Amino acid sequence: MASKLIAIVAGVGAGTGASVARKFAKKYPVVLLARNPENFEGLANEINKSGGHAIGISADVSDSASVKSALEKVKQEFGQDVGAAAAIFNAAGGFLRKPFLELPEDVFNTSLNVSARGGLNFAQATLPLLLKGVELKSEHPPSLIFTGATASVKANALMASFATGKWALRALSQSLAREFGPQGVHVSHAIIDGVIDIPRTKGWLTELGPEAKLSADGIANDYWWLHTQPVTNFTWEIDLRPAIEKW
Amino acid sequence: MASKLIAIVAGVGAGTGASVARKFAKKYPVVLLARNPENFEGLANEINKSGGHAIGISADVSDSASVKSALEKVKQEFGQDVGAAAAIFNAAGGFLRKPFLELPEDVFNTSLNVSARGGLNFAQATLPLLLKGVELKSEHPPSLIFTGATASVKANALMASFATGKWALRALSQSLAREFGPQGVHVSHAIIDGVIDIPRTKGWLTELGPEAKLSADGIANDYWWLHTQPVTNFTWEIDLRPAIEKW
Amino acid sequence: MASKLIAIVAGVGAGTGASVARKFAKKYPVVLLARNPENFEGLANEINKSGGHAIGISADVSDSASVKSALEKVKQEFGQDVGAAAAIFNAAGGFLRKPFLELPEDVFNTSLNVSARGGLNFAQATLPLLLKGVELKSEHPPSLIFTGATASVKANALMASFATGKWALRALSQSLAREFGPQGVHVSHAIIDGVIDIPRTKGWLTELGPEAKLSADGIANDYWWLHTQPVTNFTWEIDLRPAIEKW
Amino acid sequence: MASKLIAIVAGVGAGTGASVARKFAKKYPVVLLARNPENFEGLANEINKSGGHAIGISADVSDSASVKSALEKVKQEFGQDVGAAAAIFNAAGGFLRKPFLELPEDVFNTSLNVSARGGLNFAQATLPLLLKGVELKSEHPPSLIFTGATASVKANALMASFATGKWALRALSQSLAREFGPQGVHVSHAIIDGVIDIPRTKGWLTELGPEAKLSADGIANDYWWLHTQPVTNFTWEIDLRPAIEKW
Repeated sequence: MASKLIAIVAGVGAGTGASVARKFAKKYPVVLLARNPENFEGLANEINKSGGHAIGISADVSDSASVKSALEKVKQEFGQDVGAAAAIFNAAGGFLRKPFLELPEDVFNTSLNVSARGGLNFAQATLPLLLKGVELKSEHPPSLIFTGATASVKANALMASFATGKWALRALSQSLAREFGPQGVHVSHAIIDGVIDIPRTKGWLTELGPEAKLSADGIANDYWWLHTQPVTNFTWEIDLRPAIEKW
Repeated sequence: MASKLIAIVAGVGAGTGASVARKFAKKYPVVLLARNPENFEGLANEINKSGGHAIGISADVSDSASVKSALEKVKQEFGQDVGAAAAIFNAAGGFLRKPFLELPEDVFNTSLNVSARGGLNFAQATLPLLLKGVELKSEHPPSLIFTGATASVKANALMASFATGKWALRALSQSLAREFGPQGVHVSHAIIDGVIDIPRTKGWLTELGPEAKLSADGIANDYWWLHTQPVTNFTWEIDLRPAIEKW
Repeated sequence: MASKLIAIVAGVGAGTGASVARKFAKKYPVVLLARNPENFEGLANEINKSGGHAIGISADVSDSASVKSALEKVKQEFGQDVGAAAAIFNAAGGFLRKPFLELPEDVFNTSLNVSARGGLNFAQATLPLLLKGVELKSEHPPSLIFTGATASVKANALMASFATGKWALRALSQSLAREFGPQGVHVSHAIIDGVIDIPRTKGWLTELGPEAKLSADGIANDYWWLHTQPVTNFTWEIDLRPAIEKW
Repeated sequence: MASKLIAIVAGVGAGTGASVARKFAKKYPVVLLARNPENFEGLANEINKSGGHAIGISADVSDSASVKSALEKVKQEFGQDVGAAAAIFNAAGGFLRKPFLELPEDVFNTSLNVSARGGLNFAQATLPLLLKGVELKSEHPPSLIFTGATASVKANALMASFATGKWALRALSQSLAREFGPQGVHVSHAIIDGVIDIPRTKGWLTELGPEAKLSADGIANDYWWLHTQPVTNFTWEIDLRPAIEKW
């Protein structure tokens, strides 16, 4: 059996993660990681029924053992020599807009555990597969993409918990871009600067019209664009926002 | 006759400007601006012969009267009501790596005149056409793209002349992105962080292999990608560099 | 007894922390925090013998209970209504220059625990005393100062573990500066961009001469300068490096 | 006669420049540069009467010949071998908050001419004297300080004219810091992020109370602090804002 190239998406829910998974499933078998199987079951079914190939694995990115165990299941499914063409980290946690002295320690911890430790765990687990993808001469350079936010570059008042995790994740992505670019892996960071149009935000910003929120499918297209950049033209960072956003 | 949508490229030579013009010529009639007709004549012929439509106009971007006069010629050619789908500023000048106290004033002036004033003149002349493009409901949001460099974000020793113009141009692009995004025009800035593989750099970095230089066609693809982003997902800035580049 | 204003320094060793403590001890009673009493005992004696007032408390900044307990001891010593004129966070951990895939998870965890969580724990414990300092009309606006590094703004290859914690700490300092500035507390972040001249680095960079390393006493002077800025002129961030440093 | 060390301040008016001049006049003879003699005559008299030594020279920083001529007068006054301990560039121009397409070209040109070219002209004229100051072993490392603004790091909508000049000036200061730091000259950039309390702004922000504006004397103190940093601890950039400022 020929070696396979897969895509792995962490942080799959009803929003960006699902759009990204659908997009990459058009070319690669996709692995969907989420803590709660409810978050990937419907999506895996949808992709499998429409001609793609998806498997969901329950995993907690903040727990390195859980992530390693998930990767073991990936190898059982796709073979020990499986390579990855793409690994996309879309998990986040620890958002609570609150005066700092009222901020519960566990909100801060969740932000660091999911964004910073989660990013580390995911990168340490998937980079060997991405390097394998380089070896397997994947059509597009294997991509490791991290989802950031406004709070990745600006730490506003009352946003200390979320920003600390997001700044740490951006640092991780920059260090990895510098280390693994020369090895052929394309590491990117996307600053999502605005509200994404997903079921949870349905009622938000409606007064500003239909173009006030980022399209999740649009983000998926942008990640795909990053993925298809040749080895001579790697982008580390993009920012993305609705045209009408104030920034 | 239906209103036309065109693309305008300033700073056309044998490198990035030509690649960008060829790429955008697949969809739009293109206007090629350069001081010296030698820089656009061959390219205009090539595009016109291969089924596209290109005209070259001699213009000095650092001179507002020259840019205005070029835009008059554009309107004579394409009609007073012509709109622009894209305007790409690719001119630069004033590069001289030299101790500051030995830096001739005119090198510094050229950098400011071409990068900063040139960017201003080009933007003031093309934005009315880009806004017209919005009105004409161009398929993709009209795009104003500025080409930057490593020196746009880092002012190294001995690089004062080039960096001042490039930082000024980046400031211009950021202010325009904030002002014209809400009006439907997509303003972007691309940090080209490395040597571009063009005739002039043929012998450079050859010891590092064939992937040590940026592909000019790759840059053109990236500009096209920026152009096709929907109004919900605008990117202001991308960085671009070869995978092996140290940064 | 009149209410007291004290200074609290976390991360006291033979280097910057000691210099800072000596400097602030000229005006305020100082509390020295370190995990290991060996790190503060000599210094506390030295300050007490030379006319100042210092107490050392063993505390692990990465453990919120330990920091809270230390602050209880502070109140036992100085009174329940004690205010702080300055709180300086100088702890760091998790530095290991190593390929990412060989990076032990605990090094990464130490960086996040000491730099990010440590900063959080220290800030949550000391800000009530700093706000009390505002109420007590301290001569200089109460100051909360965080020590950063080159890795606070640049995440180089092989530096992922250290940079993630340091970027998170910088984010914390920026968010706190925005939240607590309007309440009268001056929050600052210092980017120490170079090797500090301390016993541990005695043999480093000697080939570059006596001015190749940062002076720890100089850093203390700079922190004092930050502390004495009036409420109309707050600096959030300074960078500090030897004149001959490449950057 | 022993060689002299002087301070040179460009952009002297009723505000920051005057405060800076008064501060540095306590230690050095000061040269006051302004286009209009009205801007320095009163101040020169005041300094000379209060025991200092000041001369005013009419100069247009945007004109290199005018700046060179002013430096000739400096040498006639203080000797051909005069050195500078400090040179402070405080000029700015081209501020006009206006839609970009209504922005007169000359406002943009004034910004580039005063901020960018002015910075260049001033630096090229004063650096030889600052290097002479190094040779003369000035007590504090000779300092070249540039005054920046919020618009030096953020180019908001409608602020294109001012931001382009200010970003260019910041680039200049960074390049010079890297080139001249190793030669012993301390180059700094101060981001003044707020309204300065000067006669012209008397009626501004009064609803926010007496601490809503930056103190010009405070800025002068901060510049003096930068000036007194030792060669082991140079700061390139500081930001300065009132505690209550939103940022």
